[in-house]
Amino acid sequence: MKIAILGAGSWGTALAYVLINNEFKVNLWTRNSIDLNYMRENKVNKKYLPDVLLDKNIEFINNIEDSIKDVDVIVLAVSSQATRNILETIKEHVNKNQLIVNVSKGIELVSLKTISQIVKEFFPNNNFVALSGPSHAEEVSKGMPTTLVSASIDKRSAELIQDIFTTEYLRVYTNPDVIGVEIGGSLKNIIALGAGISDGLGYGDNAKAALMTRGIYEIAKLGKIMGAKTTTFTGLSGIGDLIVTCTSMHSRNRRCGILIGEGKKPKDALEKIGMVVEGFYTVESAYYLSKKYNVEMPITRELYKVIYENHGARDSVKSLMMRSKKHEIEEMILNPIEWN
Amino acid sequence: MKIAILGAGSWGTALAYVLINNEFKVNLWTRNSIDLNYMRENKVNKKYLPDVLLDKNIEFINNIEDSIKDVDVIVLAVSSQATRNILETIKEHVNKNQLIVNVSKGIELVSLKTISQIVKEFFPNNNFVALSGPSHAEEVSKGMPTTLVSASIDKRSAELIQDIFTTEYLRVYTNPDVIGVEIGGSLKNIIALGAGISDGLGYGDNAKAALMTRGIYEIAKLGKIMGAKTTTFTGLSGIGDLIVTCTSMHSRNRRCGILIGEGKKPKDALEKIGMVVEGFYTVESAYYLSKKYNVEMPITRELYKVIYENHGARDSVKSLMMRSKKHEIEEMILNPIEWN
Repeated sequence: MKIAILGAGSWGTALAYVLINNEFKVNLWTRNSIDLNYMRENKVNKKYLPDVLLDKNIEFINNIEDSIKDVDVIVLAVSSQATRNILETIKEHVNKNQLIVNVSKGIELVSLKTISQIVKEFFPNNNFVALSGPSHAEEVSKGMPTTLVSASIDKRSAELIQDIFTTEYLRVYTNPDVIGVEIGGSLKNIIALGAGISDGLGYGDNAKAALMTRGIYEIAKLGKIMGAKTTTFTGLSGIGDLIVTCTSMHSRNRRCGILIGEGKKPKDALEKIGMVVEGFYTVESAYYLSKKYNVEMPITRELYKVIYENHGARDSVKSLMMRSKKHEIEEMILNPIEWN
Repeated sequence: MKIAILGAGSWGTALAYVLINNEFKVNLWTRNSIDLNYMRENKVNKKYLPDVLLDKNIEFINNIEDSIKDVDVIVLAVSSQATRNILETIKEHVNKNQLIVNVSKGIELVSLKTISQIVKEFFPNNNFVALSGPSHAEEVSKGMPTTLVSASIDKRSAELIQDIFTTEYLRVYTNPDVIGVEIGGSLKNIIALGAGISDGLGYGDNAKAALMTRGIYEIAKLGKIMGAKTTTFTGLSGIGDLIVTCTSMHSRNRRCGILIGEGKKPKDALEKIGMVVEGFYTVESAYYLSKKYNVEMPITRELYKVIYENHGARDSVKSLMMRSKKHEIEEMILNPIEWN
């Protein structure tokens, strides 16, 4: 079995590390030939995962067409906004037996599509898996206990990916709800930005827990209308990933939010982080999705105002706290609970 | 409207502070007359909430019978294992129009009852509210944004408690699912112990997020069999409270777990914390509840072994990670998802 990983960011590199641990052959592709040559020579991804030694079972390949030739599995590990472009490039070179796996998290701007929906445009006959869950690359590459979800409408594909990624430190669950896994994994980045803002404003753990709980609730409301199962949002790719992203300093989304909460302009905060902050794009996509599907998403709306309309973060928190008094479950989408 | 708060720990005191902010009259009772006299004289709860000034609308009362005379609401704010004793003491002095509110979190040992079930033994005709949610007392008493859930089978009682506790910084939701709110609030202390142990072992955010996600899942499984609505566990008194307890250093349960993870004997860790660690008792109660109701609760079982049977914490983590490969939703209790 041979696997190509397209994209040598921290997550793509960490997954390559897992696969070579499991003694698979891996092709790692990146567009940047300087980075690639450095990796080939030093067996280290200096920029994104400097502490991890990448052993000899990895081939570092600069030509994307070569990298996917004869592999069984193609793992897309580029930022979500760049995925369409990559698919365009490999379009003529993929055969229908190759399993396509996506590990990035985001919704495409303008089209408002998830990655599975974009992949389907290009490769309608290929099996597809979304691999997601609470997983900082830095921890996985140190062998620290981690769980993931392998989601596919094709059971055998989900189980194949479960098999090849399972190690003593990596436990992989399967799930047929691809769209639920994608929406949870993508939209949690919005809440992570919000959690960072709350921290930056000097609010405490109570506020952040409330934001996260009400956050996954509005994400599930949107997901359900888009065809997801609400149970998926209570799982590892939903609250699990939300928790890890909102509470860890590994999260770029949260770090960016902290800067905004402390008073930096969103644009300047983004510049200071210096890497892709998926949540920035996702706020915009989710805001338009909530309009498209007519779902009330108060946290997303306030974050959109803070990031794109210069609205004060403290005022947004106040308006969230002082909304009309609510029965917790009144809009609950799972099994509405009512007094007898 | 007049309210008695029985118990002057940090949470009882913080709630007294909220109520006097809202200009209600409050009787605060504690058994310890030295503490009480100090509070009466200095308007400060030196031991549990030293930074908060308790103004003149609080009466500090040492006689429990006097403290509840003529009040409209009686708030139980003592540790859950002590609640039966308090109810026994006030039994003859409560009238059926007094609303009884519980704010402690735990399951009684041996009887395996929740507080609402114990209260019902003594006062079957009184209305009852469980007030719960992600709320460190230290933050509430500083006016930091916080949310709570007011749960009662009587809608008007739930709304009354919502009204009297709502402030600019405290948002209260209502919910009819008393047993769900109680189980979530109590059993999260187990997972917080586990999260602390994971931290103490040096594991990362990925492991902790997985533990929390699978933890609320097994709590919901038990709760459902006990009559709770599974949706409640996805709300503020479920994942909300779990998040705040597992990620904050305010949590005694988590701090105790960290000591155990670092290698201290459970008994010594408990001694070092020096205050009630509810999770310790709750592990035992939950373990027996899982046997009584025949629900598989792997995390609870491993924690029981670590705390009461001298089992190594690292071995427990390993056995959790290496269980048979799972479909995430295969035992899911909400809406089982299956491949077509």
